[in-house]
Amino acid sequence: MSISAPPTGVRADATGFSLHAADGTAYRVELTTDLFAPGNPLLRDHLAGRQVVAFVGPTVNRLYGERIRTYLRAQLPPGSWTVHMVRTGEHFKTIASVERIGALAKADGLDRHGVMLAVGGGVLCDLVGFAAATYARGVRYAKVNTTLVGQVDVGVGIKTGVNAFGSKNMLGAYHPAYASINDPTFLRTLPDREIRCGLGEIVKMAVIRDRALFETLVAHPDTFRPPSGPDGGSEGVEDYVLRAAMESMLHELCPNLREENLARLVDFGHTFGPVIETASDYRVAHGESVAIDMALSSQLARLLGLLSEADCDRITDLLLRLGLPVHDAATCTRDLMWQALRGAWERRGRRLHLVVPTGIGSATFVDDLDDLPAGVLDEALVALAAAARAGRPRRLVVA
Amino acid sequence: MSISAPPTGVRADATGFSLHAADGTAYRVELTTDLFAPGNPLLRDHLAGRQVVAFVGPTVNRLYGERIRTYLRAQLPPGSWTVHMVRTGEHFKTIASVERIGALAKADGLDRHGVMLAVGGGVLCDLVGFAAATYARGVRYAKVNTTLVGQVDVGVGIKTGVNAFGSKNMLGAYHPAYASINDPTFLRTLPDREIRCGLGEIVKMAVIRDRALFETLVAHPDTFRPPSGPDGGSEGVEDYVLRAAMESMLHELCPNLREENLARLVDFGHTFGPVIETASDYRVAHGESVAIDMALSSQLARLLGLLSEADCDRITDLLLRLGLPVHDAATCTRDLMWQALRGAWERRGRRLHLVVPTGIGSATFVDDLDDLPAGVLDEALVALAAAARAGRPRRLVVA
Ligand SMILES: NC(=O)c1ccc[n+]([C@@H]2O[C@H](COP(=O)([O-])OP(=O)(O)OC[C@H]3O[C@@H](n4cnc5c(N)ncnc54)[C@H](O)[C@@H]3O)[C@@H](O)[C@H]2O)c1
Ligand SMILES: NC(=O)c1ccc[n+]([C@@H]2O[C@H](COP(=O)([O-])OP(=O)(O)OC[C@H]3O[C@@H](n4cnc5c(N)ncnc54)[C@H](O)[C@@H]3O)[C@@H](O)[C@H]2O)c1
Repeated sequence: MSISAPPTGVRADATGFSLHAADGTAYRVELTTDLFAPGNPLLRDHLAGRQVVAFVGPTVNRLYGERIRTYLRAQLPPGSWTVHMVRTGEHFKTIASVERIGALAKADGLDRHGVMLAVGGGVLCDLVGFAAATYARGVRYAKVNTTLVGQVDVGVGIKTGVNAFGSKNMLGAYHPAYASINDPTFLRTLPDREIRCGLGEIVKMAVIRDRALFETLVAHPDTFRPPSGPDGGSEGVEDYVLRAAMESMLHELCPNLREENLARLVDFGHTFGPVIETASDYRVAHGESVAIDMALSSQLARLLGLLSEADCDRITDLLLRLGLPVHDAATCTRDLMWQALRGAWERRGRRLHLVVPTGIGSATFVDDLDDLPAGVLDEALVALAAAARAGRPRRLVVA
Repeated sequence: MSISAPPTGVRADATGFSLHAADGTAYRVELTTDLFAPGNPLLRDHLAGRQVVAFVGPTVNRLYGERIRTYLRAQLPPGSWTVHMVRTGEHFKTIASVERIGALAKADGLDRHGVMLAVGGGVLCDLVGFAAATYARGVRYAKVNTTLVGQVDVGVGIKTGVNAFGSKNMLGAYHPAYASINDPTFLRTLPDREIRCGLGEIVKMAVIRDRALFETLVAHPDTFRPPSGPDGGSEGVEDYVLRAAMESMLHELCPNLREENLARLVDFGHTFGPVIETASDYRVAHGESVAIDMALSSQLARLLGLLSEADCDRITDLLLRLGLPVHDAATCTRDLMWQALRGAWERRGRRLHLVVPTGIGSATFVDDLDDLPAGVLDEALVALAAAARAGRPRRLVVA
């Protein structure tokens, strides 16, 4: 017997991207502006005819709660939707929060035909996504990603989860969203630190596979920041950067949606990063830990002769220029960094799969712990501390 | 592009059954005897080369714990396996138990390459299965089903879950097992009440699609009970009954593994049943509630003119003869039964999909609440109470 399968891969169109994986999983990530404007039909079209239980965090509730409720009130029949506030932040990214979300949905009478809608950052989306994956063994999950990390990372993949047993995202599920919508309008209210965290993830995609994106960031390090002058806007650049980062991420995810292959280039920044983040008790934000990890991995690549000194400097300089850290004295200790390597080695099936750049727009894996002599790690940490002390370069070398 | 897909369906062979669903899900359910005998390689072959964290409930631990540990000690390298006891019973079928299972696995260093092994009844398997589905976003799950319900129901499907928000199995996941093994040897220690519960599920399969199985149960109502005389064994019958029930269930599940179609014949016994079970605070066991529901649904079918009086009596008589209840005065009230109907109607997408037999070996759905006049339900409940009072028929009418 032979059946006709749709072609696998990622396709871009005017309103977003479609992904078709080999295992049959398919979903879209959509782009819009001003999603909750009264005249925007996008979300209404996804939700119409279904019961909707929506969740927001406190900040999004304060900034957008009224607008969201007004939109739903105008677009959906009364009684078919509710909006709840749940606490967010990594400390509330727990099974207890998932239970609370489920209990609220149950109290609203949500059944398997309904939709859980998340409007918020990665924490809120991961929580609601995991609740949707497990509620009644899975209900539809729609996400509106309101942070830059959300739009370039959380929103394009299918992972959900919570922190447990002292580890990040230790319980979770792969649960493709029924709808995933990115609206850069939300980014205007995002604190600068959160913008920086998103830029960290974008630098990641640029370094591992998109040189043009890297050069765009070098030329426009203020992307996603409020325009400095009256005509200082850079919307064209922002659109380009957002789409490029999303597309790169989707291409990396597509052949490996459920992470069966543990050698993943998108793990660049995610070997030392999680340990830095956890060990700092989340004082170092996720995107910041990714930045530090990328800087450290670049130094290691340089010391191992895999990356030129010039390219290593350009990566470090770009991170600093974007306002991201490249070192954290309290957690970037030899012991913790070794622990991170050993942890990754265990997690990735007794293979290290440390992602290191080999240039701007290309990367490879260091697979054996033995390939990393202890002296190299020490030297990389010293170099990083120095780079951090030297601080933000006055101007970047434009290629 | 066109790829070659394996044929979908259920295939039986000497050592079990293989299921291939249209969505690509594929798994086996295996049959063996004396699984933990030193010379039985089946489980070893599944586990070899992987870290194994095994879980048992208190009863299985008491009866088989030593034997299981001895087997693993002999077959697997030291340090590669652990066995933990977790509390079972419906009251412990909770998210808290899943967290405990996860925490134990984490403490043992289980990573995504390892296996969680459940040896026990449906509660233990559902708990460990849900933990395996969510731990590190999914690890391998092997189940050894030690109850009759486990072998004919839990073990052949892909559902896992826990009770939450006052409802049974309200949180869960579809998570195909890496290995699912049925060994009727375990049934020898199973309390008679648990055997009866399993027989309830077997009657279900018989009534909805397997007349020959029904007649076998009529002829051998003591199947799975300890032989009465020295040569009273009925192993041939037991094998036949077990395989027939498993095969029927697999055939019903295969086209609808994730229950996208909510009109399911295997829901026979599962419309009033869950409410009886919950409302009795689990005094009425699951299989007993299924039996009561089947008896009630058969009465309804009779009153609606869908089932002959003779066949309705044969179903009721067989249930009674197997030692199963057909009525429960405290919970089989008009109010609760209407609540059950409304609940099912909501859960099944505003369609009732009540399964009612149309003969021995065939069934259909009552889809609209309006098709069930209030008087009919009252009359059915009265008839059931009478049948329960009349009690176990002295002998069954063999067709
Ligand atoms: N599922 C995935 O694939 C995936 C990928 C990457 C990260 N993550 C997870 O995402 C989390 C990080 O997500 P995040 O960076 O979005 O952080 P976050 O969810 O904590 O949001 C950051 C802060 O911004 C606020 N906020 C959100 N939208 C806003 C807006 N439009 N204006 C003003 N404030 C706003 C939030 O309330 C929060 O205080 C981590 O838990 C990480 O594990 C998941
Ligand atoms: N996942 C599914 O597809 C599915 C299908 C049907 C039922 N279930 C669930 O399964 C549960 C019912 O399972 P169950 O009927 O196996 O009940 P159970 O798991 O509660 O086991 C019944 C009792 O038998 C004991 N026991 C187990 N094996 C034994 C043995 N070999 N000898 C002696 N005692 C033994 C147990 O300790 C327990 O006390 C319910 O929670 C139900 O929701 C799940």
